[in-house]
Amino acid sequence: MALIVQKYGGTSVGSIERIKAVARRVADTVDNGNEVIVVLSAISGETNRLVTLAEEAGCVSGGREYDVVVSTGEQVTVGLLSIVLGAMGYEAVSMLGRQVPILTDTFYSAAKIEDIGEGNIRRELGKGRIVVVAGFQGVDIEGNITTLGRGGSDTTAVALAAALKADLCEIYTDVEGVYTTDPSICSDARKLKKISYDEMLEMASLGAKVLQTRSVQFAKKYDVPLMVRSSFNDAVGTLVCKEDKDMERAAVSGVTYNKNEAKISVVRVPDRPGIAMKLFRPLSDAGISVDMIVQNISHSGHTDMTFTVPEGDYNTAMELVTKTAKDVEADEVIGDKSIAKVSIVGAGMKAHAGVASKMFETMSAEGINMQMISTSEIKISCVIEEKYTELAVRVLHDAFELSAGDVEEEII
Amino acid sequence: MALIVQKYGGTSVGSIERIKAVARRVADTVDNGNEVIVVLSAISGETNRLVTLAEEAGCVSGGREYDVVVSTGEQVTVGLLSIVLGAMGYEAVSMLGRQVPILTDTFYSAAKIEDIGEGNIRRELGKGRIVVVAGFQGVDIEGNITTLGRGGSDTTAVALAAALKADLCEIYTDVEGVYTTDPSICSDARKLKKISYDEMLEMASLGAKVLQTRSVQFAKKYDVPLMVRSSFNDAVGTLVCKEDKDMERAAVSGVTYNKNEAKISVVRVPDRPGIAMKLFRPLSDAGISVDMIVQNISHSGHTDMTFTVPEGDYNTAMELVTKTAKDVEADEVIGDKSIAKVSIVGAGMKAHAGVASKMFETMSAEGINMQMISTSEIKISCVIEEKYTELAVRVLHDAFELSAGDVEEEII
Repeated sequence: MALIVQKYGGTSVGSIERIKAVARRVADTVDNGNEVIVVLSAISGETNRLVTLAEEAGCVSGGREYDVVVSTGEQVTVGLLSIVLGAMGYEAVSMLGRQVPILTDTFYSAAKIEDIGEGNIRRELGKGRIVVVAGFQGVDIEGNITTLGRGGSDTTAVALAAALKADLCEIYTDVEGVYTTDPSICSDARKLKKISYDEMLEMASLGAKVLQTRSVQFAKKYDVPLMVRSSFNDAVGTLVCKEDKDMERAAVSGVTYNKNEAKISVVRVPDRPGIAMKLFRPLSDAGISVDMIVQNISHSGHTDMTFTVPEGDYNTAMELVTKTAKDVEADEVIGDKSIAKVSIVGAGMKAHAGVASKMFETMSAEGINMQMISTSEIKISCVIEEKYTELAVRVLHDAFELSAGDVEEEII
Repeated sequence: MALIVQKYGGTSVGSIERIKAVARRVADTVDNGNEVIVVLSAISGETNRLVTLAEEAGCVSGGREYDVVVSTGEQVTVGLLSIVLGAMGYEAVSMLGRQVPILTDTFYSAAKIEDIGEGNIRRELGKGRIVVVAGFQGVDIEGNITTLGRGGSDTTAVALAAALKADLCEIYTDVEGVYTTDPSICSDARKLKKISYDEMLEMASLGAKVLQTRSVQFAKKYDVPLMVRSSFNDAVGTLVCKEDKDMERAAVSGVTYNKNEAKISVVRVPDRPGIAMKLFRPLSDAGISVDMIVQNISHSGHTDMTFTVPEGDYNTAMELVTKTAKDVEADEVIGDKSIAKVSIVGAGMKAHAGVASKMFETMSAEGINMQMISTSEIKISCVIEEKYTELAVRVLHDAFELSAGDVEEEII
């Protein structure tokens, strides 16, 4: 008998019919002799509706009452699924964050999980019940409702799986798994059978929006195997787990892209200590996260500094940087919103030489200019003109032979 | 400084704009030097939406998970009002049933309040905060969410007012108060300045849907003065309070009617002990509440038994009664859905002779046949053909001079 945590996202519980389909899947898992903990998101669109109400009421940046409002979406779905399971003859009991309890800090709307009590869930499982937990929400030490931030239901599922030492955490969504790249750009994109936590982190944070980054970090920390799969069919998904030997055979596991960044260059900055701090402190104070940073070598006491920011923060960032540039007597500030970041990700890179040069050759052969380059142990990213995004993704996908048949190893 | 409980119904919080209007009223009450506890219903239509979802999920008659789902409506409004008040510069804190706590028994979906802790509310009031409590919901001893049944927010407000010994409990709704009769039938219906708990109970249970019956019983038991008024304007409402001398001046306070009943007659039932029990037990087992019961005098060992049931239960009741009638060898069962009940209500009846005969004369003068009659200390009801309802209400309203100018006494 295995203990399985199943998390279903918003589209998977998007209607009563979809919730009934989820119930059948949960029931099948129980019938196969497993104990099941279900974690649910709100009905798709519901959280947005609630956020809009809170904003119309005058809420600007979360807070205690915001959490009271937005946490109701998951409360509705856990009640509904428990009703459906009950009507099917399966004993189910819903639990809110406070009932588990999922204890968090008091940072409303962006709370971090501090502790999970396993006693209540174990007791209900012991009675042969299915436990249906509301995702995204927790409770602070004083009994106030907290929420974990958008996408927090993935984190709830992984944290529960870790706390209860579950054998598997299944993340059901509206895609079949993690692909070598975006299938809408590259028709021969292939579903990966396995991917390491680190690769998944790079894939997720680079724009493959399958799993919330925080939940993958959590899974990695507690070594929780994650199976990403679709709730709309029975296809085998992608297992996200510890790096193993099989994974090292391919140098590159996937190609990702992100069109939602903008580039800002500060030209001829005086090259002296403290300049970078002066430039970036106002941005971080404004809550703007700077991604790639490139600083050229110094010429006659001056350097050029280029970096990327999320496109939504572009205007604010330009204002702040222009002000700082004046203060530090830089020549000028040049902004560019028509850029994209394209990256190759692979744990195998560490063992394979020449991955970077192959990437650069491929881009060059197509005449795509790489405006910025940044590398880590398992990924290489470059900034290019936005209009070349699809072309770059396709040629890189081909160059690293990502569509070449299925990976052969069996799922663990 | 007075402690005031203000309860706002679904239409009063029916949109963000309406919630902002509520916030201004609450703020005004605070600015006038009062401590305020607000109790809210769900946004109008929201509870019905949630009930429909629960029913589509397979819920047949409430239960733990039903309560988890339907209690979210009030959670949303208390969060939203607290956000609005905060944005206006007033410190407000929302409280769910469990946070007050409003302790109930474990009869899900129809729970009764057992105890209210006043410590948490007092502490927040002591900090100068407005406390915004979710109506309709409570918590059982094990921390499960319970709900009080439809209209339960009135009960929440009255119970809180009683527990905290509030000076006044204001019930804000979409009508300006309690009228001598339905203004849509009788254009000269007059708003009452005062009405006793008992009269209000008869008015409410007879069909004047302003206040939930249970909340009036509660208010009577704990002597909580209730002011029923509109949230859409500043008109003075109707005070529901203990009977006082002023009230005795008029024999009749109001005329009410109910078209949603049906009449069932069992003809020539053998008149022996236990027959009534045999007839009504199956109905009460089926959850059908029988209202008026009339039994004629016995002729040659047989009697006729007539009673009314809610129109929605008519078909089930007819089936059950027809079966029993056969068992006890009654001659036949006759049903009639085209009836209405018209009643006059007034605490003054006790001191005034001739009220009943005046009612009967009035009906007779219009040629309206009274099919059944039932009386209590402060009301007289009769069943008539449904098509005469409006006529009967108007002539009774005139006969008892209910439109004759305003009551003169000042509001307490």
